[in-house]
Amino acid sequence: MPDKPAIGPSTKLCMSLAGRPGKFGSRFHNRLYELTGLDYIYKAFTTKDLPAAIGGIRALGIRGCAISMPFKEAVIPLLDHIEGSAAAIDSVNTIVNDDGWLTGYNTDYSAVLDLLDHAEIAPSTPFLLAGSGGMAKAVTAALRNRGHRSGVIIARNAATGQALADLYGFDWARSSQDLTAPLIINATPVGMAGGAEAETLAFPAMAIEAAETVFDVVALPVETPLMRAAAAAGRKRISGADVAVLQALEQFALYTGVHPSEEQVKDAAIFARDA
Amino acid sequence: MPDKPAIGPSTKLCMSLAGRPGKFGSRFHNRLYELTGLDYIYKAFTTKDLPAAIGGIRALGIRGCAISMPFKEAVIPLLDHIEGSAAAIDSVNTIVNDDGWLTGYNTDYSAVLDLLDHAEIAPSTPFLLAGSGGMAKAVTAALRNRGHRSGVIIARNAATGQALADLYGFDWARSSQDLTAPLIINATPVGMAGGAEAETLAFPAMAIEAAETVFDVVALPVETPLMRAAAAAGRKRISGADVAVLQALEQFALYTGVHPSEEQVKDAAIFARDA
Repeated sequence: MPDKPAIGPSTKLCMSLAGRPGKFGSRFHNRLYELTGLDYIYKAFTTKDLPAAIGGIRALGIRGCAISMPFKEAVIPLLDHIEGSAAAIDSVNTIVNDDGWLTGYNTDYSAVLDLLDHAEIAPSTPFLLAGSGGMAKAVTAALRNRGHRSGVIIARNAATGQALADLYGFDWARSSQDLTAPLIINATPVGMAGGAEAETLAFPAMAIEAAETVFDVVALPVETPLMRAAAAAGRKRISGADVAVLQALEQFALYTGVHPSEEQVKDAAIFARDA
Repeated sequence: MPDKPAIGPSTKLCMSLAGRPGKFGSRFHNRLYELTGLDYIYKAFTTKDLPAAIGGIRALGIRGCAISMPFKEAVIPLLDHIEGSAAAIDSVNTIVNDDGWLTGYNTDYSAVLDLLDHAEIAPSTPFLLAGSGGMAKAVTAALRNRGHRSGVIIARNAATGQALADLYGFDWARSSQDLTAPLIINATPVGMAGGAEAETLAFPAMAIEAAETVFDVVALPVETPLMRAAAAAGRKRISGADVAVLQALEQFALYTGVHPSEEQVKDAAIFARDA
């Protein structure tokens, strides 16, 4: 591992803003800075004053900032430019600061796109997608952009579910009961560690059995009930941990211009998960 | 040395704002964080938008901030409270952030006070002080507060020199020509590395010869022409490096509540000077 440079005036700071800051980003980015010998540090923050926090990023020349819940939409009017896909889904999870000019990106969107490509999911594949929040928007937009035309948005909230389905020309259903598709995707917090439904399966067993590929956006734990059931059924899996790593890697490249090796990314992903 | 904790959500950030950020603060504070095992990091910044930078400190919960030229006066109206001595000299070099409440201090003032005490300079000692800028104000206020009543402020700028002398009841002179005193103090940039007068002696040889104690606030190099001449004449010396270390140590204690051992401070001071 190259010597980590001592923090000095030329060290660049990247950061995150979240309602409840986690350890993943700090560990992933700082580990990759070490592995690649970059003179950067990464620090997680929260704030009660989003406009002043964004003003501080601009005034202090902080190079980049990850944006998590609940700031992904509220941050948009505070930026100078919103990149196309982030604008389309009204959700920014990444800010890049070029000499005070702040651009908003959504690397969740691009990570989902890349993971679906990498898993060789045919663009004609029909899907079921559970959820209608920010992450569901990103996944639905990615599916539409890949060419998927047949899909059902499953959401108990009729207003947001129907709106998301209409926006991209898909169907909406209140429940996944009796529905099946070759690709099923959970974009709700069901199965998330510490959540109210941590032990709940995000889809009925029948839907998992009927699927070819099961995709869960929940990153913690890596082995959600849905991911465990998919493994037991021998289905192809895409995990929330895959999304977390890939979207963070895209942030890393946006901030630094550096593309680490596969080995370095694997090391950082394991290190970050150990938190 | 204790293990440095990995940077995470609970890591506290301290920083500096300067027109031209140097390495000393980053190296001194980060070294002391390592030596004491504190979960802090320190990063130097500059800014073109001081109000937004201070707003960012508040919004991001940045624990403390060193303030250097040219921000020491301009920052005052942006803070919530100015501690007495900083208010008296209209100069803040340290901000402490208590849950969004920003207090301004001047640790140059307190460091000078401590160094004069430590060198056992009698409060009746007459002095010559060259300079009328921010550092000259801090030193003059410290002298007055120790009980010194006889002194001459030497400044080519009649307006600022006379004003500073009047404020504390001292005399003013345009030049140190033919003046002597047991305590002589340089609070101008004369002798500073990289400056226009890097090789210039801040006082005439006669004044150095006549002095008991020679005090130079210039920190870089440690051995200014004035400090070298004082050593050659066998005079007691107080150096700008002493001020730099002591004022940074007081900032460290204000930010962290921790008072490092003498050995740890010595280590950090040597490490910081090696930059």
